[in-house]
Amino acid sequence: MSSSEREEKLIARIKEWTASSFIGDDCAVLPGWGLVSSDNLIEGTHFRLDWTDLVSLGWKACAVNLSDIAAMGGMPRYMTISLALPPYIGESELRQFYLGFTDCAGRYRTRIAGGDLTRGDRFMIAVTVMGDLHSAGVMRRSGARPGDVVFVSGSFGDSGCALSLISRQGFELAQSGEPPPSLGYGSLPLSLFRPGSPSSQLLSRHFRPIPRLETGWSVVSATGGLGSLMDSSDGLGDCLVQIARASSVGMEIDLEAVPISSAVGQYSRQWQHDPLAFAFYGGEDYELVGTMAPALFEKVQEVDPDSAPLTAIGRVVDFSGEGRQAVRFLENGKPSSRLGGFADMKNCFQHFGG
Amino acid sequence: MSSSEREEKLIARIKEWTASSFIGDDCAVLPGWGLVSSDNLIEGTHFRLDWTDLVSLGWKACAVNLSDIAAMGGMPRYMTISLALPPYIGESELRQFYLGFTDCAGRYRTRIAGGDLTRGDRFMIAVTVMGDLHSAGVMRRSGARPGDVVFVSGSFGDSGCALSLISRQGFELAQSGEPPPSLGYGSLPLSLFRPGSPSSQLLSRHFRPIPRLETGWSVVSATGGLGSLMDSSDGLGDCLVQIARASSVGMEIDLEAVPISSAVGQYSRQWQHDPLAFAFYGGEDYELVGTMAPALFEKVQEVDPDSAPLTAIGRVVDFSGEGRQAVRFLENGKPSSRLGGFADMKNCFQHFGG
Repeated sequence: MSSSEREEKLIARIKEWTASSFIGDDCAVLPGWGLVSSDNLIEGTHFRLDWTDLVSLGWKACAVNLSDIAAMGGMPRYMTISLALPPYIGESELRQFYLGFTDCAGRYRTRIAGGDLTRGDRFMIAVTVMGDLHSAGVMRRSGARPGDVVFVSGSFGDSGCALSLISRQGFELAQSGEPPPSLGYGSLPLSLFRPGSPSSQLLSRHFRPIPRLETGWSVVSATGGLGSLMDSSDGLGDCLVQIARASSVGMEIDLEAVPISSAVGQYSRQWQHDPLAFAFYGGEDYELVGTMAPALFEKVQEVDPDSAPLTAIGRVVDFSGEGRQAVRFLENGKPSSRLGGFADMKNCFQHFGG
Repeated sequence: MSSSEREEKLIARIKEWTASSFIGDDCAVLPGWGLVSSDNLIEGTHFRLDWTDLVSLGWKACAVNLSDIAAMGGMPRYMTISLALPPYIGESELRQFYLGFTDCAGRYRTRIAGGDLTRGDRFMIAVTVMGDLHSAGVMRRSGARPGDVVFVSGSFGDSGCALSLISRQGFELAQSGEPPPSLGYGSLPLSLFRPGSPSSQLLSRHFRPIPRLETGWSVVSATGGLGSLMDSSDGLGDCLVQIARASSVGMEIDLEAVPISSAVGQYSRQWQHDPLAFAFYGGEDYELVGTMAPALFEKVQEVDPDSAPLTAIGRVVDFSGEGRQAVRFLENGKPSSRLGGFADMKNCFQHFGG
């Protein structure tokens, strides 16, 4: 069992144990209150202090939580930040972390309501975000209906590609006998961050993700909550499976329609990767993935010019049950096994049979 | 600088950096929403898995968060639970944790709204609780006024005394060459838990604290929010200093009036401790400490028979500034230096001169 399957199984158990009807979307929808969501970032599991600077870490800790509000089509209001501080995070490191955090929170008009501060062995960040529902409704994972367009915001694979780039640099530095990485970007060559370069675009997507709040808001405005939506923290593949499963539907995805940035294309050609592998399994793009009726899809892109562009990548179909995959891939209209060779993908789909 | 002073200094900085007007009470009061508070429990810092069983740990993780709502006189509604799970916390351990957590949450009609589950090196629990304000008002630390009665709920020192008992047992077991402690209560002799014994009373106060929700609610009902209140997570001494500082007042405390349970008295005599040291510096009693006008104090105890008994332990006085301690101790009406010899106490008071 992969670790994400183990996590999924435990979450199903917790839902049982807590008799909670709120678990299953990016946020809980609390009657009389609004939206609430919690996300942890833990040193060693989610980030390495020799790969990130603390301003970016603060930004990201805020952005990934705001992204959960975006995934429900809501508007963020307040956040709490609980930290466990190891001895090597002193006041000046904490100052940098909060600079990044408040920069991100301020741009999306979200206020810091408080939190908790304790000692620990590792730097640990637990954030809870609270937000208001859109008056028109709320987007859930379970709202996909046969005939819907499957759409995504922005482009996919940038963040996973950045991680590959960073690992490669780390590996090459280790091979070269350079001194061990220090706190901050110190372990990565400065040339990677040259403004406008493909590598700097990729790294910015990984370290400073943009929560798609305007886009989520536009989607609810256009649909009134009819359709489905989630954010792509664990890759496009995971999103499609989660929505298909929660909605009991199937999907046909046109692989050539999946938006890939030129930076991902360029890196993939150079190192002979399949760019779609970054898109489907890379994770941490924090783009939105959803479905809605075709007539609404034409409307939604006109709502807000600040929204990230939306791209149709397939259709929701009836899911006839066992013996067929819930999510099928097409290339130029024909069934494709292009992504079939990946072990992770098999894990994603094994719950749906063959 | 002690670690609690370092924490206090950092919290003051964070308040500055985040420009947050919400920080400074047990909960933030969020306009249009209600009360919110976050608390972490971190393995190695807040608990040891060889000293606690997981059902009790779950109870405590819930109770200490509910206690923050009690401290504002509010009513809890929802909680999120974010966990980092080390490899040695599997499904059956998690089941026990949630048994304790949901037992406590259910008793106080609080629903689990969701959370996050990630891998980590240590067991880490981050809880956020959301609650409703009492329609009559809210209790803050800053509401103490000269002439107020200083009061406490329940009794003090039990939890700190339990910790002393556990440490002593651990020490004696280590000296005796017994096998190393295993997960759960295994490292403590079963005789300590004999129902009705003084040791079992102490351990129950430490491992299964009771959030004083009815008491907090009664206090607001009687006062309409006029007065001050907080919960005693860090000892009675810390509470008195926090309230005095937030309200810019002084206090006179009658040491002989501080309620001490017979179990604390008995343990203190046996091992030659001052029971007041457990009460003032022990922490984790999760009783309420507050102030209100004397006429209201007579009224509040009649409001709800389920409330913990309240005891008056002193008076709020004018604080004339430098050169005098903000909180003075009296014994039989005369100034007392009984607690003056403790280094921790000096730390508590050094901000006030004296």
